[in-house]
Amino acid sequence: MINGQQTENRRADGLRDTGGTLLTVQTYIPRGFFTCIGRDGKVFDELKYVWLQGRQVWMYCRLYRTMDRFHKPEILEAAKAGGTFLRKFARIMGSGGQWKCAFCLTREGKAVKIQRTIFSECFYVMAMDELSRATGDTDMQLEAEQMMEQLIYWVQVDSSGLGRPHLPGDVPTNSMAVPMMLLCLVQQITEGRGQKVAEKYRDLGNWCVQQILQHVQRDGTAVLENVSFDGTELQGCQGRLQNPGHALEAGWFLLQYSTQWGDKELQKTAISKFVEVPYQSGWDKEHGGLFYFLDVDGNCPTQLEWSMKLWWPHCEALVAFLMAYQQTKKPELLDMFSQVYEYTFNHFPDAENGEWFGYLTQEGKVALDFKGGPFKGFFHVPRCLYMCERILDDLLSNKA
Amino acid sequence: MINGQQTENRRADGLRDTGGTLLTVQTYIPRGFFTCIGRDGKVFDELKYVWLQGRQVWMYCRLYRTMDRFHKPEILEAAKAGGTFLRKFARIMGSGGQWKCAFCLTREGKAVKIQRTIFSECFYVMAMDELSRATGDTDMQLEAEQMMEQLIYWVQVDSSGLGRPHLPGDVPTNSMAVPMMLLCLVQQITEGRGQKVAEKYRDLGNWCVQQILQHVQRDGTAVLENVSFDGTELQGCQGRLQNPGHALEAGWFLLQYSTQWGDKELQKTAISKFVEVPYQSGWDKEHGGLFYFLDVDGNCPTQLEWSMKLWWPHCEALVAFLMAYQQTKKPELLDMFSQVYEYTFNHFPDAENGEWFGYLTQEGKVALDFKGGPFKGFFHVPRCLYMCERILDDLLSNKA
Repeated sequence: MINGQQTENRRADGLRDTGGTLLTVQTYIPRGFFTCIGRDGKVFDELKYVWLQGRQVWMYCRLYRTMDRFHKPEILEAAKAGGTFLRKFARIMGSGGQWKCAFCLTREGKAVKIQRTIFSECFYVMAMDELSRATGDTDMQLEAEQMMEQLIYWVQVDSSGLGRPHLPGDVPTNSMAVPMMLLCLVQQITEGRGQKVAEKYRDLGNWCVQQILQHVQRDGTAVLENVSFDGTELQGCQGRLQNPGHALEAGWFLLQYSTQWGDKELQKTAISKFVEVPYQSGWDKEHGGLFYFLDVDGNCPTQLEWSMKLWWPHCEALVAFLMAYQQTKKPELLDMFSQVYEYTFNHFPDAENGEWFGYLTQEGKVALDFKGGPFKGFFHVPRCLYMCERILDDLLSNKA
Repeated sequence: MINGQQTENRRADGLRDTGGTLLTVQTYIPRGFFTCIGRDGKVFDELKYVWLQGRQVWMYCRLYRTMDRFHKPEILEAAKAGGTFLRKFARIMGSGGQWKCAFCLTREGKAVKIQRTIFSECFYVMAMDELSRATGDTDMQLEAEQMMEQLIYWVQVDSSGLGRPHLPGDVPTNSMAVPMMLLCLVQQITEGRGQKVAEKYRDLGNWCVQQILQHVQRDGTAVLENVSFDGTELQGCQGRLQNPGHALEAGWFLLQYSTQWGDKELQKTAISKFVEVPYQSGWDKEHGGLFYFLDVDGNCPTQLEWSMKLWWPHCEALVAFLMAYQQTKKPELLDMFSQVYEYTFNHFPDAENGEWFGYLTQEGKVALDFKGGPFKGFFHVPRCLYMCERILDDLLSNKA
């Protein structure tokens, strides 16, 4: 092959960008994954979203590492190529001398956009940690830990490195996504790495749990997406916002954590407040499915997509209900699982071309017909199926 | 009244925040307008969005100044109070020593968010210029001109003061909103101020027109929302994006400009490319109404709200068709006006509580039931009715 030749973009391995550039016979620059995939599988945009690159690497490695039927060299190779792409292109040295990750890259890996939040970095940590487990590469584990330290610094010490100016009217907000994401990372980084590592992150884990529990408001009848740092309700739309799918996802994160530390009280709270409450408030009794956003006082949310039914809250709900049932054997939790299962599998899968649609109208009609986009990648669907399969296996083998 | 007393928030004058603080009998701190107004008129959020504050001041002054039945002291007073609020609270000295305007303020005027774009500043200019005309206050006119110079510097010389870091993959983009908005400001600032002022801004106006015309692509069959600065199509979703309401709004801006300068060629282009083309591509032949976003290749847009019917594109379409008819007397333009009129007045007004809804599903059902929100204020509906009334008056009196 000739130096610099752009190989043809093959479709054989689905989302993986195989159009790499061969600078010399030895130096192939890997290109990550396309994630904007149309109804019929055609790539409709070549931008590479870092959240989705990180999540895809994580998912491949997790499947490779923990499920026999996915323990295949081509899955590991795809994950490694994605990881190399991320390490080479996703990290950007920020103006304050701190590493940031871009939100979005061109096909060739040039940064297009950097968010002033922590989430690209979080998915980078997930990818690197899981990749280090699949490959045994301790450099990647170190990189995950270093980025994790950076994240903790931003969240607990000084967020100015994120680049958002402090404004006098911008009330400090405990947004549920932040402690949820960090709790997920604590579980990722500590899993199976022994008591010493678990203890190292114990305080952070507990802090995340406390931050998440502050979102239970209105005498325990609602989970609000944004609260103050001392756990009181914020004014206005932001303060009244509910995101049922997010609350359900937090629910199963808390359930996992309560199991790890044998915390029965937390298990109880997780089920009653983060599994049952969001279902009661978030389920659309007229058309079925979980609303994307709601206002706790019954006002109309200002998000244009508030009434749409998205794939990922349904994925999170399936995991949350099944895990809650696994831990309690309460039949009503299995009923909720069945109801969400029926809705999900009747509405999201595309019988014609495979894969799931992501975005339905309130009435359940496909509103956006692509299979992958800027926020829908190889993550929520496979993670849900993976988690549910494991729980069901446990239930069937009476281990649970 | 007692010093510092918070007066009760009265509803009598609709959206105006009357809950001012009387620090001394003389120093009343004005509070601007609430814009988040529920279905029944109740304020559901007290944040004050600067785009909407500026637009409301502009609209009050324009009505006061040019229509006898709105030439009332209470309208001028409300506009002045809004202007005082803007001057006192909206402007923030940016890190680079340049004035920025906040995007959003608390009820008390503290900055909550600053966008890294030019639009808050644009609506500030519109408000100040029109207020100077209604009041004769030359300080405000000067302020409008100074901010206008700042805007021109950002757009034509150096945008780094907006605070967006330059990233290697972030392709410079001619986004239609920018030249449209500046053309609108050129017309605002020069209107009736004599030949010297008109000539001063002539080059800028022509530059805006050229920038807008670059959005006509695909051999004249499409108006694309984002193009390169040399007028070629951009890659990916961003490059294929169409926003029919925006193109129609650009259409009537161009028609006004072509009239002012007697440019028949521009008039022809404006009608064929910015009025007829967006209607043909943007009208939903199944359910009626104008789509919010479309992809020129027929892919599904990635914006979750792409198929919704918003009030403002319909407002812009009404003005565009009626003005195009006024200038040409082509009956098919009146037919298009009638079709949009029927859809608009059958779907957006709320027969029960008055005012217009803003957001419908593709099928025409109310999707968000508030009357005012972060982006819907006292602007598109009254501007549309105002423009249409003036054009219809002209048509009926045979002046046109």
